[in-house]
Amino acid sequence: MKVKQPIRVLVGQSGGPTAVINASLYGVLSAALESELSLGSPIEVFGMIYGLEGYLKGMMYDFSSLSEEKRPLLKTTPGSFLGSCRYKLPEDMADPLYGKIFEAFEKDRLDIVLYIGGNDSMDTVNKLSAYAAEHEKPLRIVGIPKTIDNDLPITDHSPGFPSAAKFVASLVRGIVRDAEVYDLPAVTLVEVMGRHAGWLTAACAAARVETEDNPVLLYLPEADFSVDSFITDIERQLEKRKALVVCLSEGIHLSDGTLLCEMAGEAGHDVFGHKQLSGAAKVLEGILRARLSIKVRSIELNVPQRCNAVEASLTDVSEAMRCGSFGLESALSGETGKAVVMTRKEEGAYGIDYALVPASMVGGKEKSFPASWITKGGSDVSDQFLEYLRPLLIGESRPPMKDGLPVYLTRD
Amino acid sequence: MKVKQPIRVLVGQSGGPTAVINASLYGVLSAALESELSLGSPIEVFGMIYGLEGYLKGMMYDFSSLSEEKRPLLKTTPGSFLGSCRYKLPEDMADPLYGKIFEAFEKDRLDIVLYIGGNDSMDTVNKLSAYAAEHEKPLRIVGIPKTIDNDLPITDHSPGFPSAAKFVASLVRGIVRDAEVYDLPAVTLVEVMGRHAGWLTAACAAARVETEDNPVLLYLPEADFSVDSFITDIERQLEKRKALVVCLSEGIHLSDGTLLCEMAGEAGHDVFGHKQLSGAAKVLEGILRARLSIKVRSIELNVPQRCNAVEASLTDVSEAMRCGSFGLESALSGETGKAVVMTRKEEGAYGIDYALVPASMVGGKEKSFPASWITKGGSDVSDQFLEYLRPLLIGESRPPMKDGLPVYLTRD
Repeated sequence: MKVKQPIRVLVGQSGGPTAVINASLYGVLSAALESELSLGSPIEVFGMIYGLEGYLKGMMYDFSSLSEEKRPLLKTTPGSFLGSCRYKLPEDMADPLYGKIFEAFEKDRLDIVLYIGGNDSMDTVNKLSAYAAEHEKPLRIVGIPKTIDNDLPITDHSPGFPSAAKFVASLVRGIVRDAEVYDLPAVTLVEVMGRHAGWLTAACAAARVETEDNPVLLYLPEADFSVDSFITDIERQLEKRKALVVCLSEGIHLSDGTLLCEMAGEAGHDVFGHKQLSGAAKVLEGILRARLSIKVRSIELNVPQRCNAVEASLTDVSEAMRCGSFGLESALSGETGKAVVMTRKEEGAYGIDYALVPASMVGGKEKSFPASWITKGGSDVSDQFLEYLRPLLIGESRPPMKDGLPVYLTRD
Repeated sequence: MKVKQPIRVLVGQSGGPTAVINASLYGVLSAALESELSLGSPIEVFGMIYGLEGYLKGMMYDFSSLSEEKRPLLKTTPGSFLGSCRYKLPEDMADPLYGKIFEAFEKDRLDIVLYIGGNDSMDTVNKLSAYAAEHEKPLRIVGIPKTIDNDLPITDHSPGFPSAAKFVASLVRGIVRDAEVYDLPAVTLVEVMGRHAGWLTAACAAARVETEDNPVLLYLPEADFSVDSFITDIERQLEKRKALVVCLSEGIHLSDGTLLCEMAGEAGHDVFGHKQLSGAAKVLEGILRARLSIKVRSIELNVPQRCNAVEASLTDVSEAMRCGSFGLESALSGETGKAVVMTRKEEGAYGIDYALVPASMVGGKEKSFPASWITKGGSDVSDQFLEYLRPLLIGESRPPMKDGLPVYLTRD
């Protein structure tokens, strides 16, 4: 019996990590094992350590060194197991960097490169596959989506967003319980990640138990922010209830484009003379306190939004895995220059179909929160959004626990 | 058969809420049901809405209106179900307020008052019971401990602390995974609650997987903070690893008592002229960036530390319940002017004995993190502390989920 040549696969993770980016990696590894059987060829999977940037320095991870017992921990480990980079490839396809990259690919005898990431990573997939096509390289390159911001176009949603949405909605529900304990007028401002896209802030609406409930106001970067309207909104809500919880995106801005977070710190220096930077919620905290003379506090949810894997969305973990396995299967079947996207089944119960589109349709592009889903003069979101969101939050993925704390996987 | 007079119990919650303060309330209700059988007397339980302050305005909750199906939700609902207040009773026992309070107690024909809270609440228990003794009132008053700060004296630890500690340690473990993804020198500063007591910051040490691991440095308010030593500590750690995670208490201060958070904002105003306030981590972020020219970010964990009930410590929930039931049982057996405390069993596996001490020994006093457990010149904590902490984190208490989000109980 003739032994077939092994198929060599290189997978990288790029951009900011999420709770499920490693679940996609797990999906790739699972599909490799299954495809070995169906194709009758050994499949060897390697990882770029610190993305393309690290790989070019010769940093490569051999997944055969990851034991079978440890592998499933990838499904519940946040952050990028392989490490990540923020690395934009040159627009000029004649740049010598491309030659250098393909030299490395050829030296490593690669057949397939998979890149798990957001807009910039899909741009990388697009450029590398364009270069490969132009230079008649047989390498197949496929992108696997991830981003908590949910701003990738075409795909129904992006792996990483559901778990981040579940985390913020769940936490905001707890913050509401906390905010309502005193019999005093008070405003709690919650700042949610999202510089350009308000999907995650919108997800805070799911924290409401009743229709007229905290969080009572939501501000997204897709609508211009007005400080005066904001004060009016707050005053109106204070007529109805004492404790308000308000959620806002870090990227909210005035109609002239000035970010709220830029409105702080012009004169803000600490006692050492170092400039202070504040978030949008912190800026609004100061404004509200001065204008309304009531108790105000701000909470910046910050990095935990993308690195908490305790009670992540099981739907998200499953879909992230399938995006990974679908990506490898597609490349094995000859596809290249494509990005995996998810399409929601139009009829019946919630379900996802996996498909491919040219990476150029995803790379470097951003999907905003739809204007038609922004309501009440830019201070709320529609029920249609909540219907879209609800199935994404279902199910709890839980890491194994040891000594009362989650067990996460690290490379060494 | 002669029907006995009902025993009337009033229970209040005071101060900042925790993840398990309602579990203590559940403990009180459970003990009431059990004691009805053993004593053969009906026991009627009422709640102060918004603590003593709301009660004096006539706001009272009748627990008979809380259905049997909903009652168990108290075990997993964060925040104060009854509402809370911050209300310090006058030192002068001749103040007419005391007469007014006891008038209300008598009007409501109360036999027992239970107050769930921290230092100030135990001070309230002490004062009210002193007044009762002086004026020969038969009312029995017992305090049930809670505080995420773990700064109540005598008791081994306080309900609320274990769940907050589990939350911060778990989240910091995720933050470490996130912080280590790039191949760049970077410092992540995590600010943890604790103005005077560093217990919660110390708990971040449990996030380490190996001994020499992130978070590499911990700063507690029990040790004077020096900016120069801090810079040196950071520089030394950067020689060993690229990405540092550093945890610090909000209340860290210089040797002259100046709080780090006071070092910002002297000249800090936003473009509207409003003064900006920053946390300690934000101040250190500015200092580090200026002095070391590396990537620095700060994360203030903020309110979620005390209001997250998703994967709370099951040990904490059980103990909080038992503190509540023990408090009522003690009052029923005639005790008054006491606070419930927990004593760790000295031998064998981890276990707690419940006991009473005079509320005066707990009220208004604070238990600092022991100086002998602070190591490495004030930048770390000892293994003895971790041994103390470990059993408190064990087990996961999970709220029921609906539509992918936790179900919490509200009064109406």
